Amino acid sequence: MSSRWPTSGAAACLLAALAFAAPAARAAAPADMSGEWEMTTMLFGSPLAERMTLAVENGKITGTSSGRPVTGTVEGDRIRFETKDRDGTVNSYEGRLEGGKLSGTATITQEPWGETPRLSWSAKRPAAGKPAAPRTLDYEPKDFHRVFSAQIDPVLRIWPGDTVRTRTVDAAGVDAQGKSRVLGGNPQTGPFYVEGAMPGDLLAIHVKRLRLSRPLAISDDGLVSRALTADYASEHKDNDFNNVVWNLDVAGGVARPAKPTQKLEGLAVPLRPMLGCIGVAPGFGGAAIRTGDSGRIGGNMDFNEIVEGATVYLPVGQPGALLYVGDGHALQGDGELNGNALETPLDVEITVDLIRDKSIPAPRVENAEYLMAMGLAGSLDDAFREATSGLASWLEKDYGLTGPEVATLLGPTIEYEISEVADRNAGIVAKIKKKYLPPPAPPEKKK
Amino acid sequence: MSSRWPTSGAAACLLAALAFAAPAARAAAPADMSGEWEMTTMLFGSPLAERMTLAVENGKITGTSSGRPVTGTVEGDRIRFETKDRDGTVNSYEGRLEGGKLSGTATITQEPWGETPRLSWSAKRPAAGKPAAPRTLDYEPKDFHRVFSAQIDPVLRIWPGDTVRTRTVDAAGVDAQGKSRVLGGNPQTGPFYVEGAMPGDLLAIHVKRLRLSRPLAISDDGLVSRALTADYASEHKDNDFNNVVWNLDVAGGVARPAKPTQKLEGLAVPLRPMLGCIGVAPGFGGAAIRTGDSGRIGGNMDFNEIVEGATVYLPVGQPGALLYVGDGHALQGDGELNGNALETPLDVEITVDLIRDKSIPAPRVENAEYLMAMGLAGSLDDAFREATSGLASWLEKDYGLTGPEVATLLGPTIEYEISEVADRNAGIVAKIKKKYLPPPAPPEKKK
Amino acid sequence: MSSRWPTSGAAACLLAALAFAAPAARAAAPADMSGEWEMTTMLFGSPLAERMTLAVENGKITGTSSGRPVTGTVEGDRIRFETKDRDGTVNSYEGRLEGGKLSGTATITQEPWGETPRLSWSAKRPAAGKPAAPRTLDYEPKDFHRVFSAQIDPVLRIWPGDTVRTRTVDAAGVDAQGKSRVLGGNPQTGPFYVEGAMPGDLLAIHVKRLRLSRPLAISDDGLVSRALTADYASEHKDNDFNNVVWNLDVAGGVARPAKPTQKLEGLAVPLRPMLGCIGVAPGFGGAAIRTGDSGRIGGNMDFNEIVEGATVYLPVGQPGALLYVGDGHALQGDGELNGNALETPLDVEITVDLIRDKSIPAPRVENAEYLMAMGLAGSLDDAFREATSGLASWLEKDYGLTGPEVATLLGPTIEYEISEVADRNAGIVAKIKKKYLPPPAPPEKKK
Amino acid sequence: MSSRWPTSGAAACLLAALAFAAPAARAAAPADMSGEWEMTTMLFGSPLAERMTLAVENGKITGTSSGRPVTGTVEGDRIRFETKDRDGTVNSYEGRLEGGKLSGTATITQEPWGETPRLSWSAKRPAAGKPAAPRTLDYEPKDFHRVFSAQIDPVLRIWPGDTVRTRTVDAAGVDAQGKSRVLGGNPQTGPFYVEGAMPGDLLAIHVKRLRLSRPLAISDDGLVSRALTADYASEHKDNDFNNVVWNLDVAGGVARPAKPTQKLEGLAVPLRPMLGCIGVAPGFGGAAIRTGDSGRIGGNMDFNEIVEGATVYLPVGQPGALLYVGDGHALQGDGELNGNALETPLDVEITVDLIRDKSIPAPRVENAEYLMAMGLAGSLDDAFREATSGLASWLEKDYGLTGPEVATLLGPTIEYEISEVADRNAGIVAKIKKKYLPPPAPPEKKK
Repeated sequence: MSSRWPTSGAAACLLAALAFAAPAARAAAPADMSGEWEMTTMLFGSPLAERMTLAVENGKITGTSSGRPVTGTVEGDRIRFETKDRDGTVNSYEGRLEGGKLSGTATITQEPWGETPRLSWSAKRPAAGKPAAPRTLDYEPKDFHRVFSAQIDPVLRIWPGDTVRTRTVDAAGVDAQGKSRVLGGNPQTGPFYVEGAMPGDLLAIHVKRLRLSRPLAISDDGLVSRALTADYASEHKDNDFNNVVWNLDVAGGVARPAKPTQKLEGLAVPLRPMLGCIGVAPGFGGAAIRTGDSGRIGGNMDFNEIVEGATVYLPVGQPGALLYVGDGHALQGDGELNGNALETPLDVEITVDLIRDKSIPAPRVENAEYLMAMGLAGSLDDAFREATSGLASWLEKDYGLTGPEVATLLGPTIEYEISEVADRNAGIVAKIKKKYLPPPAPPEKKK
Repeated sequence: MSSRWPTSGAAACLLAALAFAAPAARAAAPADMSGEWEMTTMLFGSPLAERMTLAVENGKITGTSSGRPVTGTVEGDRIRFETKDRDGTVNSYEGRLEGGKLSGTATITQEPWGETPRLSWSAKRPAAGKPAAPRTLDYEPKDFHRVFSAQIDPVLRIWPGDTVRTRTVDAAGVDAQGKSRVLGGNPQTGPFYVEGAMPGDLLAIHVKRLRLSRPLAISDDGLVSRALTADYASEHKDNDFNNVVWNLDVAGGVARPAKPTQKLEGLAVPLRPMLGCIGVAPGFGGAAIRTGDSGRIGGNMDFNEIVEGATVYLPVGQPGALLYVGDGHALQGDGELNGNALETPLDVEITVDLIRDKSIPAPRVENAEYLMAMGLAGSLDDAFREATSGLASWLEKDYGLTGPEVATLLGPTIEYEISEVADRNAGIVAKIKKKYLPPPAPPEKKK
Repeated sequence: MSSRWPTSGAAACLLAALAFAAPAARAAAPADMSGEWEMTTMLFGSPLAERMTLAVENGKITGTSSGRPVTGTVEGDRIRFETKDRDGTVNSYEGRLEGGKLSGTATITQEPWGETPRLSWSAKRPAAGKPAAPRTLDYEPKDFHRVFSAQIDPVLRIWPGDTVRTRTVDAAGVDAQGKSRVLGGNPQTGPFYVEGAMPGDLLAIHVKRLRLSRPLAISDDGLVSRALTADYASEHKDNDFNNVVWNLDVAGGVARPAKPTQKLEGLAVPLRPMLGCIGVAPGFGGAAIRTGDSGRIGGNMDFNEIVEGATVYLPVGQPGALLYVGDGHALQGDGELNGNALETPLDVEITVDLIRDKSIPAPRVENAEYLMAMGLAGSLDDAFREATSGLASWLEKDYGLTGPEVATLLGPTIEYEISEVADRNAGIVAKIKKKYLPPPAPPEKKK
Repeated sequence: MSSRWPTSGAAACLLAALAFAAPAARAAAPADMSGEWEMTTMLFGSPLAERMTLAVENGKITGTSSGRPVTGTVEGDRIRFETKDRDGTVNSYEGRLEGGKLSGTATITQEPWGETPRLSWSAKRPAAGKPAAPRTLDYEPKDFHRVFSAQIDPVLRIWPGDTVRTRTVDAAGVDAQGKSRVLGGNPQTGPFYVEGAMPGDLLAIHVKRLRLSRPLAISDDGLVSRALTADYASEHKDNDFNNVVWNLDVAGGVARPAKPTQKLEGLAVPLRPMLGCIGVAPGFGGAAIRTGDSGRIGGNMDFNEIVEGATVYLPVGQPGALLYVGDGHALQGDGELNGNALETPLDVEITVDLIRDKSIPAPRVENAEYLMAMGLAGSLDDAFREATSGLASWLEKDYGLTGPEVATLLGPTIEYEISEVADRNAGIVAKIKKKYLPPPAPPEKKK
């Protein structure tokens, strides 16, 4: 079967009709269950996290959960409710409030199979205690991670608005002192838990500061296969990849090959530190993703506009989002043709904001001048389709333009970047200068 | 950086020069260290497994490890040796024999960084006790796995030549009795540990028997995006995917929609049970791979020729290979256009053989009539290149043909299948009828 | 600008509002202008051909032209009428009947430019004299053509139902006697004019007989670039293409390399003569297409199922369709990997039928067992989309299936062929066995 | 067969061994045949043009023709010579000098067919009379052409170094006065014959001046299919293309929609006039190419850096090159997403230089800041390969870099543009800033 099936969106479809096992609770003064809950349903060992918002009046519940309507009743500390999926499936829950937490069971009917074993669910209130003012927090990493995973314990819990100052090792796992800290493959710093972030939200990560912490970077002297015609390849039998060491002259603002051949003497390329990786944990049911890969979660996007001043938007897939950063580049040409850019550790400072209830199909980047929609796919052609359609949708949704208006606007103004071709996903970025945009549309009403 | 870096092949390049910390051992009668070892070196927490074969004469070691030359000395229970990588890097080890096992340390020099912390290594003899005759083993699965992983404990240890009889759940995790056993997404049965299999070997899995264990299969009524032109898509606003239940008439040998529309009444498609997934654990440093994905390890290939009578070849990446099977289809059209085929649990019987020291770039399949080389890539164009070049290499290596001979032979005889387009990797299979092949070349001498 | 603009479909949009220059004709007995006309409008030197059907009652005209409504009046030998484009543009014509032919002028208003110079138009009755019974006609070619063109005079005029017996030279322009007759590049026999065929119709070409006329065929010993990974190419510096001569053993039914290497001795591949090229002239405003290319007109499709017994469907773009055949192959593997198949001249026998007012987006092929929709595009991925969507549309249109019905039917039954990768367009063919089809839908009412 | 075969490069392979029919000429004072000739051999009606350079000493000829060695003898006005192809085939010619021209015959032996009919050939001296100083020539076009063809008579003969001032109509064939002059589809001005240009040479076209000649441009309000995901397409049922008129405010330097919707009021995009088409006639045996297409000849490249100040390099395929220009855009976003850019007529001024004996695989562009190699192919993935490999080859050939040097240089410095996706070929451009280049290598010796 395809990979379409077991994603978080589809998961709700597994839940069907509830057979209440417990007898109805006796009448009692209803507990206060109104407001917001972070709910978790266990589906065969996998936690499905949802934000649920309830309003209780006279024992009657109305509300929403993951955008679906919730109806039910409260009696004393007992709660019963149903959610209805887009396809009409009704999921039913019953439980009780105890110690400020809800917990209970649900039974699924999954056609054509009928009832399946009882599921357990629980819900807790969102974390309290948001600081009065945004904080700046330092985190000195001890361990580094080679997957974007929901199973790794967060190293720091931050609130939206907070700033994190931390460090990354280079793609090979070597730190600023030249010490190997971890096996290579873009090991990451993190994850950082963002309080209040729930699936369906959007993270806005502002890259405040990216500074070189080592005077050397490592790259290669070969070209990746995706860049080679069969003719060029057949004329270059030994398209080997040998390391090239670059000296980073921070004062002069340039990188130079440490041992240039005679022809390349004098080559000096302007430094422009960037984050090769920035990603979050995959959503419900998704396996951990290796840090050489990219996708809806961000990850190893290798886009040379993720520099100081950029804001990266990533869709939240797990409670707390679980944000990772790594794979610093002193600079990178388009496409990361050598497989590696100028790989080097970085000092990183990011400020993280949360936009609730906003879904995007793929990572986005914004800076002072541009909106940028990323397309990440198995071919440049598919990445191009995703990038262009992604930018078009952005303009429709956030600026209230019609299809023909979007086309009229993009035709003369769109620009593209080829972010990378060195990994499994190729990346293309569709950009528009913000000066051409109409005023934003008022935000959509939540459905 | 790209995903090229931290793969098993490259890992050896991390090892450079050894600084012996331990004083040289006093002279003593050398222990018998000749023969074959399964060696494991820990690189920052990741085990790198290699087969090492030593010949000791007068205290001098010669041998090979992962195809690289080994030289060294034995004094009493002490061993010292070096391996030399293709790029000239020398890796040095020292250790001691104790209780039939070797263990010790190595120090890496990784240019331009100099020495890095001491690594530990160990080696044990290959398992003994191969049964006199191949066995048939039954395994009734309790748990199912949603990743192809080296971290999951094997459920059964088998010897090359053994046959395993077991069961799979369907892609949604539902078993033959209609009971949900695990979250969907092609949950797998296994892994099976094949004694003696080491990285660099090849697994040959003979599919002996695939039988339907449930009279129902589930599919969908939509077409995956990869199959749609923009025009077709724009004319089909609601390309929704709703489940279609199929009745499996084993006696009649056909599947029929359980509730056909009037137009589809009478539709009956011949049953042809196949394994959608067959895969092994990824090699050194590789993250677990979700069971919706495919690649060099095999995995979710969804190729409708993996039926009774087929042999699947997969490259071993871990000690024991760790073989998984799952995702049975009652039958499948080319490409798995609905995202799902006719998903159903199967009774599975496979016989597993081991071919030592044989590497292949991608999965291969063989049956009575054909050699079949799989291409699995992010686009059909790249999958086509891989399939064709894979079959061409196969003929060059195993049949001793030159490039022009391969071209002359394949031009008039090659056939292709589009195995699947429903997942991240598209699959194309290049085939040649075995009746056109010259006699196999004598096997290459090991280098 | 893109190639979208000047195609025949768009041409009508150039015509806007008519300014009548001529004074209204005096009242007179209206001539009989009812019935069918083959009309030609000259647009800046390019003839736009359309079938127009008129009904005249009491001097009032109703009718259709290229599917658009026609309204107007007849006074004596004078006619005035308007057609209305899909975008609302009104095109106006005036003229007179003389000697059984209509001719006159039209003036275009093309926004935002206003009136443009007067156009001339004319119309004649469809050819009469269809033979009572289908004929078999022999045509011995003298010249061969290296483009599919509307500017080449037809060599033979046939009626729907007629059979043509003729010959082709091989792709290099060499005939059955080994004589070079024309420069290579798939020179064609034809064109054949099919009486009554007009743009918007469909040609059904039944391949009755394809026989080898020379005991030698020529192929190559290299693989086309589209089939090579960069790795494979880099290991094969000299992927040269040298001719390989094949002996065609018609009695034995096989082809054998004339001078096999030792490894290929004994190689014998079954003969299966096919037409590499079958095509019609491009439609309005389209430039001639070289005979190495393919597309909506058919052309160099190199599909190894265009053998005896196949029917090829091609959309008519010009009056008479102007049908060409050539590029015989004694046999061909999938994809035509050597750039050439076993190139050889053929004796060809085809029967041509005409299906009026039926448009198809791309060539189709049918045989006793299968419906086959071709996808021809610049990449296999795009060809795949076209083939699949083309077959889906075929089933929707001709069999009255809904989108979900099509998906349900194709998922378990679809098969694919890779027809060719050797030319600018790659070709993929989507197939379904006719035994799975529901009864055809009643033909659509003409709109 | 594939399109590989009948190209100009391969054509020479048709010529094999000469059977002299004419008796040897009597001894006489040899005529002066030394120096350069423009030779034409007729192959089955198609002229194969080559530059031949001879040195005659004591009646012995040495020389080159299309890079191949020439040897022969002169006796009086009689000449005999042979050329040897790369594959060893010997082509033999005999003829006589008369009126300053050579003419004669050759016989081909084409294996395995043996001798074919006698060919005729002739040769004339390159044109004389190059002006002392470059000239500026005005050409007012009367006709416009919808193909890049070798069969259209040149409208003007210029010398290398000359400048041409002329005009283009817009892509729809409408001129500066709003008058339709020709059917749409990028009609071209030209062709211009460049004296001395022969196949194997390179044209350098300097774009000196591009000025708007009409205050209106026309575009569209739809997005081309290549830019749409199936999802986006399915949400936009009516992705129609309606004209959008733009006002060109030359004084203000911007274009504005003539009738903007409320949301797009205020939209003003900077003018940047560019040539959508610049191309030459295809080489030997090649059919005319429609002006909506692109390729090695240039053509409809729609690259928005072909503006004032750019130099375009195109390989010469025919004597005189036969240069065409057309399809002006007031400005264009990357990719030409609307199918049309802001289409408008232009006043054009170009200076044309000739670089002899220099072959390039695809069009190139250069400006003050960048070298730019174009990739034009049926998919973005293939265009990317061609662009990158094209730039890499450029650096190897013209700057004497090795493969690893090229990779080291391009990795951190390469940039890409997506030139267009609206036509059959997609275009990607690989760029490098000239400031990063080493000094050019000395030109290669002619072989």
